[in-house]
Amino acid sequence: MVRLAPIPAGLPATVPFVGPETLERQSGRPFAARLGANENGFGPSPRAVSAMQAAVAEVWKYADPTSFDLTAALAAHHGVRPENIMVGEGIDGLLGLLVRLTVAPGDVVVTSDGAYPTFNFHVAGFGGVLDKVPYRDDAEDPQALAERARQTGARLIYLANPDNPMGSWQDGAAIAAMVDALPPGSLLVLDEAYAEFAPAEAIPAISADDPRVIRMRTFSKAYGMAGARVGYAIGHPDLIAAFDRVRNHFGMNRIGQIGALAALQDQDWLAQGVAQVAAARDRIAAIGARNQLTALPSATNFVALDTHRDGAFARRLVDALAGQGVFVRMPGVAPLNRCIRISCGPDAELDILEQALPRALATL
Amino acid sequence: MVRLAPIPAGLPATVPFVGPETLERQSGRPFAARLGANENGFGPSPRAVSAMQAAVAEVWKYADPTSFDLTAALAAHHGVRPENIMVGEGIDGLLGLLVRLTVAPGDVVVTSDGAYPTFNFHVAGFGGVLDKVPYRDDAEDPQALAERARQTGARLIYLANPDNPMGSWQDGAAIAAMVDALPPGSLLVLDEAYAEFAPAEAIPAISADDPRVIRMRTFSKAYGMAGARVGYAIGHPDLIAAFDRVRNHFGMNRIGQIGALAALQDQDWLAQGVAQVAAARDRIAAIGARNQLTALPSATNFVALDTHRDGAFARRLVDALAGQGVFVRMPGVAPLNRCIRISCGPDAELDILEQALPRALATL
Repeated sequence: MVRLAPIPAGLPATVPFVGPETLERQSGRPFAARLGANENGFGPSPRAVSAMQAAVAEVWKYADPTSFDLTAALAAHHGVRPENIMVGEGIDGLLGLLVRLTVAPGDVVVTSDGAYPTFNFHVAGFGGVLDKVPYRDDAEDPQALAERARQTGARLIYLANPDNPMGSWQDGAAIAAMVDALPPGSLLVLDEAYAEFAPAEAIPAISADDPRVIRMRTFSKAYGMAGARVGYAIGHPDLIAAFDRVRNHFGMNRIGQIGALAALQDQDWLAQGVAQVAAARDRIAAIGARNQLTALPSATNFVALDTHRDGAFARRLVDALAGQGVFVRMPGVAPLNRCIRISCGPDAELDILEQALPRALATL
Repeated sequence: MVRLAPIPAGLPATVPFVGPETLERQSGRPFAARLGANENGFGPSPRAVSAMQAAVAEVWKYADPTSFDLTAALAAHHGVRPENIMVGEGIDGLLGLLVRLTVAPGDVVVTSDGAYPTFNFHVAGFGGVLDKVPYRDDAEDPQALAERARQTGARLIYLANPDNPMGSWQDGAAIAAMVDALPPGSLLVLDEAYAEFAPAEAIPAISADDPRVIRMRTFSKAYGMAGARVGYAIGHPDLIAAFDRVRNHFGMNRIGQIGALAALQDQDWLAQGVAQVAAARDRIAAIGARNQLTALPSATNFVALDTHRDGAFARRLVDALAGQGVFVRMPGVAPLNRCIRISCGPDAELDILEQALPRALATL
């Protein structure tokens, strides 16, 4: 009775991620530690909190559809022009718009097998055809991505650096070399959601005006504002301007928009949070090691712990941790899925993890 | 150098609405009265304000991607099942998803000439072909829309009730009759953004399970939360479920999601705000009458004032009001554009309007 257009009619009813709230309703009890979605429990700058609380009183107003002030501040922060910046409702929203702008039905899009599922969701959602390259040594493989792009004439290539779900990272020079190896007319979407946690050498020196690359950044991770839904793209002015053709102009939440600007202006808090995350990574690694799980090196706010077993074992461990009140996730594809992925959080949550992990393992 | 897919490549660079902040930057001074975007300066329930301020502290968490609690509360409020409700980032966002779900390139979509431009923006954005029916007596014309839909085999038909930008409304029975007159396989999107301001008889008795209709509601207008970006669709469960195939699952702002639930639970505040808006409508009409502008009847939170001149005159009046510090808008299409459209607001803002309007008229 309900008639859908051909592309959506052919899409699966599945969703990329199940939220922790759904799992809590299924189990009938809340998680004691929320360490599964790479949220940042160290939270946003107190200046951002104050700005958001003040903004609540004026929530009867729509947000500025141009995000003018935030865009100007981001441009200054990155040393680019406002014309290089597009603010949107998180990277997820921007990825959807980017795919819509660049991928026609049947166009090939190259990504890594096991990389960010929400990107794949958008590609399929607009009729793109995904072509996947395997990870190499638990990291995305820039040269293999570029080679596959040349073989397939890919329109769009996805690379997250640092990577999710493994936490690995590329040297910036390797990414710059990859860009030079792309076929003409293709576009690299460089997802830098975790860039603030990474060493400086992981950030490639690519001009914001380079039409071959668009970068994605977010206030969800290092800035601790996942629920605010503020991300931004950095890219060539023509591509940035094209978002205006299709985006939901009045889609930004006003409180989040104002909070992001205040968060950006508190780089001291950001640095402190990045240090707290680094300490939490070390603690998660130590907790893992005491339980015969090996932490992979991470340049993000999460740690992949290698179970040295298979995906079925890791799945049982994730479920057993949930049974112990700890929300974590795991990679979806072999061989990555021998790992579980644990987000960094404050010590109170890691205390719970520390107690829960041996108990969960003991149940297996 | 930047290559877009064919549909976006063919889209104009124009945007549906210019925000007041852009106008303020152009003029170099802020508006004294913000009465142009049908925002609701009476603001949200204090319970919603408190809930949002409390939610700021937990903005490091993503929102529940299923909006489970809000969906359940909305279903109870409307006497439908949760399966009939899809929460999204305002009606604008939901309209975009609906067009994407139902309109393939080349499909005909019927609307009224002068109705909501953002809907048209989405239709063009997905390659749909707009076919427009004129207003009749400053109101949308349900039977003409249905007839045009039958003539064209329209996939989607748009009707706002109450209407924006004129403020007029249909009797619910007329809309029910229109639905019966639609061709098989077509879908009416009934935009009820202003429904809470309308008389009860304007709301048609259409089952939420009727696959021929999807209704759109929002927290932006009567609930006074435009900047929160929370809207919802009510429709057949199969159509509602289809949104999961394409929507940005983690796209909701957590503060807005929590605030909307609290706002819904304060129906006393809603009723009080609706009464305040009704009084403001009367005052705007009186201000207009003293300046030889005639208020059209309105079932919304705005008033269209007939200048009894043409669109060029109304445009000059809108600009002159801006020069006096008052932000208003006007319909975009003749003959509707002989009017200016003034949003309801608290007395302090209407005081400014009252002083500004004769001064603005005197400059013309």
